[in-house]
Amino acid sequence: MHRLLAACAFSAALATALPAAAQFQKPEDAVKYRKAAYTVMAAHFGRVGAMAQGRVPFDAGAAAANLQVVVAMSTLPFAGFVEGTAGTEKGTPKANVWSERAKFDAAAKKMQDEVVKLAAAAKTADGLKAAFGKAADACKACHDDFRNP
Amino acid sequence: MHRLLAACAFSAALATALPAAAQFQKPEDAVKYRKAAYTVMAAHFGRVGAMAQGRVPFDAGAAAANLQVVVAMSTLPFAGFVEGTAGTEKGTPKANVWSERAKFDAAAKKMQDEVVKLAAAAKTADGLKAAFGKAADACKACHDDFRNP
Repeated sequence: MHRLLAACAFSAALATALPAAAQFQKPEDAVKYRKAAYTVMAAHFGRVGAMAQGRVPFDAGAAAANLQVVVAMSTLPFAGFVEGTAGTEKGTPKANVWSERAKFDAAAKKMQDEVVKLAAAAKTADGLKAAFGKAADACKACHDDFRNP
Repeated sequence: MHRLLAACAFSAALATALPAAAQFQKPEDAVKYRKAAYTVMAAHFGRVGAMAQGRVPFDAGAAAANLQVVVAMSTLPFAGFVEGTAGTEKGTPKANVWSERAKFDAAAKKMQDEVVKLAAAAKTADGLKAAFGKAADACKACHDDFRNP
């Protein structure tokens, strides 16, 4: 399972290694794409969070299936952060996504690493609970630094 | 690669095998989710289409990476078709998604099968071109029958 997850994530990363300009016709398309990727990721991550918080019973199969989607999605949104798509409204990326791109990319990588670890740890309820917080923290850290509140 | 694709699709299917009611808090969440999943799928499918139509050069690695995302996404939207989310506006699902659910599910399955075949065929430019049309036809057939124009 872990190898499979890593392979899925790797192939997805390949897709996003193409130049961003070659991937989207218009900046609006890139914005729509990255928001969509986060929406899908958040839906599946949220279901794992419900298990971590005891709101739904632990189910190893459901956790694995949801986390496989999370891992696959985790590499996708970042290709959508094309130049000229910063904002000021709630939920939009701040300009420092681009002015501090290395820091942003490191924050993205941290999240990607933590969801892979979470997927590996989620074979048991205790493993899931322990790893979920770190993954959620990685999401939040990037939001705190790079997303308009 | 083919086995990997199948495994990814299978695991994603597992996630969507949960009761739809357990997966979304509100019908609006389900609508947002399914639209997001289609947006991500369409972005990657479109890049393969550009190769099929000769608008960009064939690149086996990029085709494989994009199609891996397409295959992974292909099972996701359907969990979002929860009762009470039919519409009349352009792009919304018609009521027959629910009144002819078996036919809708078969159309979804047809698309999922065709994108798996496309991923297997896309190792060469000729293979990609031959299989792309069938996958695109499967998308269109479902849109024609179940989506408001």
